[in-house]
Amino acid sequence: MKYPNKIIKDQKKVINYANRGMTLESDLNITNQYYIDNNIAIINKKATPIKVTKVTYNATQKPLITEGFFQTPSTTDYNGVYKGRYIDFEAKETKNKKGFPINNLNQHQINHIKRIINHNGIVFIIIRWTTLSKTFLLKGEDLINFTITNKEKAIPISFFEKHGFIIKETFSPRLDYINIVNRVYFGGN
Amino acid sequence: MKYPNKIIKDQKKVINYANRGMTLESDLNITNQYYIDNNIAIINKKATPIKVTKVTYNATQKPLITEGFFQTPSTTDYNGVYKGRYIDFEAKETKNKKGFPINNLNQHQINHIKRIINHNGIVFIIIRWTTLSKTFLLKGEDLINFTITNKEKAIPISFFEKHGFIIKETFSPRLDYINIVNRVYFGGN
Repeated sequence: MKYPNKIIKDQKKVINYANRGMTLESDLNITNQYYIDNNIAIINKKATPIKVTKVTYNATQKPLITEGFFQTPSTTDYNGVYKGRYIDFEAKETKNKKGFPINNLNQHQINHIKRIINHNGIVFIIIRWTTLSKTFLLKGEDLINFTITNKEKAIPISFFEKHGFIIKETFSPRLDYINIVNRVYFGGN
Repeated sequence: MKYPNKIIKDQKKVINYANRGMTLESDLNITNQYYIDNNIAIINKKATPIKVTKVTYNATQKPLITEGFFQTPSTTDYNGVYKGRYIDFEAKETKNKKGFPINNLNQHQINHIKRIINHNGIVFIIIRWTTLSKTFLLKGEDLINFTITNKEKAIPISFFEKHGFIIKETFSPRLDYINIVNRVYFGGN
């Protein structure tokens, strides 16, 4: 029996959602909106950098992009402010069970993370292990230390368990990473 | 005598550059790169938010955007970190000589500035008065105070002269606004 492509695609989607709930990006967007609405922090996802190469204008002179390309991000995906301090992080999902492949982050992003540490900003990665249903916050300092002292191409789950912090999933806020930030960087409870 | 459009366009460009030097955005990009290279601060211009509505794939499976729209920015143009603190600003040029029209900033941006103040971030606007050849930094707090206590639709140049800070243009860094930030917010010289 053959299904049209569309239906097969939709089925895949359903299976994915069942496995892992909503995507990490979606959970973070909802969480960040919660932080803004409840006056906790102002964190935004950066827009995807796009190189626009052709534009036309319609009758109302509104520009319409007719050709453009996605560009490789040179920084991390999220930044903002919490208690006056600069907050910066990258968020990634992995289906792996044993290790997070470091090449999921590009060299520009690693360099950016080093610079933020150097300028006393708060920088970390949030990694969701979809198969294990666990989401960790790992400090930028620990990520960089790993890349310096290890030649492995993946950070093992045991490293996250030892150095990282589990972010619990709740109804609201969906993924309360600021709670971890408050504990880890501000000595809060 | 008639010129083809292309030449007229190029002539206009030359006249503009002669009048006002490089654009404010270009000066800020060069300055921000200087800050990164000299390990002073990490400030980046945010990507323009674009809603992508159609994508095709070429032979190498690289996505090509074939339809998209520019979106109204809901935050300011620049943010980053200096000495661990969150830095956020919007930059605008005006050809006016007497007043900076407040509607050059949209309501989302004004709300964003209020929120950053509320979270103890450092937020300001940089306004270049191209006709006067002057560039001012004005603290977000003073901007918001003006909008609360005045019904005028433009902030007069006198307000900038009284409450703002002139940013000097030099060869390098081109537009040293961090020098002002250091004095105004960190008590530096």
